[in-house]
Amino acid sequence: MKMNAYVAGVGMTGFGRMMDRGLKSIGAEAIEAALADAGVEKQDIQAAWMSNAAAGVLTGQECIRGEVVLRGVGMGGLPVVNVENACASASTAFNQACAMVSAGLYDVVLACGVEKMYFEDRAKVFGAFMGAVDIEQLGSILEGLQKSAAASGAKEASKSAGQNRSMFMDIYAAAARSHMQRYGTTAEQFAMVSAKNSFHGSLNPRAQFREAMTVEQVLASPMIAEPLTRPMCSPIGDGAAAAVIVSERKMRELGLTRPVRVVTSVLRSGWDHAGGEGLSEVCSREAFEEAGLGPDDLSLVELHDASAPAELMGYESIGLCPKGEGGRLVADGATWLGGRIPVSTSGGLLRKGHPIGATGLAQVVEITEQLQGRAGQRQVAGAKVGLCHNGGGNIGSDAAAQCVTILTGG
Amino acid sequence: MKMNAYVAGVGMTGFGRMMDRGLKSIGAEAIEAALADAGVEKQDIQAAWMSNAAAGVLTGQECIRGEVVLRGVGMGGLPVVNVENACASASTAFNQACAMVSAGLYDVVLACGVEKMYFEDRAKVFGAFMGAVDIEQLGSILEGLQKSAAASGAKEASKSAGQNRSMFMDIYAAAARSHMQRYGTTAEQFAMVSAKNSFHGSLNPRAQFREAMTVEQVLASPMIAEPLTRPMCSPIGDGAAAAVIVSERKMRELGLTRPVRVVTSVLRSGWDHAGGEGLSEVCSREAFEEAGLGPDDLSLVELHDASAPAELMGYESIGLCPKGEGGRLVADGATWLGGRIPVSTSGGLLRKGHPIGATGLAQVVEITEQLQGRAGQRQVAGAKVGLCHNGGGNIGSDAAAQCVTILTGG
Repeated sequence: MKMNAYVAGVGMTGFGRMMDRGLKSIGAEAIEAALADAGVEKQDIQAAWMSNAAAGVLTGQECIRGEVVLRGVGMGGLPVVNVENACASASTAFNQACAMVSAGLYDVVLACGVEKMYFEDRAKVFGAFMGAVDIEQLGSILEGLQKSAAASGAKEASKSAGQNRSMFMDIYAAAARSHMQRYGTTAEQFAMVSAKNSFHGSLNPRAQFREAMTVEQVLASPMIAEPLTRPMCSPIGDGAAAAVIVSERKMRELGLTRPVRVVTSVLRSGWDHAGGEGLSEVCSREAFEEAGLGPDDLSLVELHDASAPAELMGYESIGLCPKGEGGRLVADGATWLGGRIPVSTSGGLLRKGHPIGATGLAQVVEITEQLQGRAGQRQVAGAKVGLCHNGGGNIGSDAAAQCVTILTGG
Repeated sequence: MKMNAYVAGVGMTGFGRMMDRGLKSIGAEAIEAALADAGVEKQDIQAAWMSNAAAGVLTGQECIRGEVVLRGVGMGGLPVVNVENACASASTAFNQACAMVSAGLYDVVLACGVEKMYFEDRAKVFGAFMGAVDIEQLGSILEGLQKSAAASGAKEASKSAGQNRSMFMDIYAAAARSHMQRYGTTAEQFAMVSAKNSFHGSLNPRAQFREAMTVEQVLASPMIAEPLTRPMCSPIGDGAAAAVIVSERKMRELGLTRPVRVVTSVLRSGWDHAGGEGLSEVCSREAFEEAGLGPDDLSLVELHDASAPAELMGYESIGLCPKGEGGRLVADGATWLGGRIPVSTSGGLLRKGHPIGATGLAQVVEITEQLQGRAGQRQVAGAKVGLCHNGGGNIGSDAAAQCVTILTGG
């Protein structure tokens, strides 16, 4: 959808492990930071879209998650819409907030994503991921993953997916093996993605992991689901991210000196399509068409690198390189900070972290700060156009939801 | 929010106990009925707002609930937003869908609510209601409810709320006792609400309970939380409801002969307000102001009668009668079918049933069919203006979310 809205302020927590904090505390930190950054007061917020993906199963807060989080900062009485789209929940919240502002329905709104995933009971945490596929078909999905692993001779085929890891890593591993077979992509190239994002994460004070890793270190790490070693898999995490979105009129009234404009945000659900374009391709193409821009116009991308192969495949579906050449793109250094098109300068989901309901808005935080020239050591010189690419869940052979958003500034 | 959108078609399942059906099967029935009623095809739907409140805890489908349900009818590729606001989830979905259409962003969209609550494990079902309050304060909420019950000498004080019934019935019981003490409302008057809605439900083929009950029968039923007997408490249930919402342009193109117009829909979250207006009052007043109408203009109301006292208090907050006179209003027969202002002609949550994530849209189904003169034995003669009143969850001393929608037709 074509948009005309502005990001007036952003805020987020550091991502990581917060055993002693709940949704309210984590959410409050991000919301208060975003309000302060925008220079608006709580009472100025006319509506809020609140995102969370797993609190029902993980904390018991099955309902009214947003109202509870907002109560923690003393906000109430406004329209609150709790939205969910698995790992694309926060970009869905941002999409809805921007649509309402672009359409002239509100002048100042809030989008916030918050997730709390670290608990002692790891089986419960990994089990929660089962809820992001069609659970009426869970049995056949798991069976298919095990067959795929066995057929490729993967060493982990004997371990049941979802028992000691997110089932999604088995889904990504199967896709990675298929990409290797079809295009000659190598495990080293997947490892380069993780090495790159670990370097970016080492420059981000809010990243969950700040250790820079070499390709060798990534390859030598414990195997999770062949060919994915641990640093090729995004971690679970706790955290929140928020954005204050305003109309053009309000942007002028606030006297924003470095306005970041939301140009387009395309949200689509997955479906059982036989071949043809993938969901990420469809959304990216549509976003570029609406923005009147192309991949060459991008200064940087925050990409849904829930796994290292997902980033390589994302390069191709966004159009940063031709189909099958994702491995070469990262090997050539193009997507590193300082390269032709830096990807996930925040450290991405792999290293900044992936508290699932907060991730889409954390991407908006990074792109906004980059377009405003305040990304510190991670700054992309002269950044003018940024793209956020956020996917969630799984339906058939694709993501269940995908959101691609283009922001301009600089 | 002022709206200018039209309900082109509605559909719902019967509400009740469906042990052998899942979300996909239940949702598909309502969606296909709504599409057929509107005379549009699946591929005409440009976006969908999907509502469910408890599947994460109850079925394990924590994420992408809407995508999964839509997959069941072969729909995908469109923007799907999963929304939640406890028992007000479906009216939130309807509100968002209508806002987007009113703002000119879409011409044809779907709002659908679906819930599956009947399971063998009743403790799990009742436990799920805990997730509709601020669970970080659950302990003090339960303690307060027990103190209130003990102070009033209620016989059920010894039973732990939420163990063998929804905790919300304890919340409603406390509010009922307060209303009795303050205004002289009687248990007989609460029973009249249930008797009335049982009569209405007896005329509704889709109602979960079709037995008409007398006031005496209601009072003689098992006590759930004093003064509430079982027929004064809404049941759990399985079911789905859906509406196709279209722009004015599309309404004309479809050649709708009995257009139902959405005039306003006000959604607000609860907050910790000290005295003053309740959330239901605030939303109702705002809705009437936006519509340029008053309580006297209403032909009928679908009210959030999650309990019998909730209906009496709803009369007062909507403005059907002065504060404290809710008991007299039902005793005078005004809110019965054939009375001055019939309330919950569908049988309401008490008798039509209350599959929580579907309820708000089931209200829209009833009002739409009434305004189109096709409500059969329940038809309110000359119905021209209908109001839907849907609340959800609990924050502080009020609902966590409230939505009031006014529709016109006839």
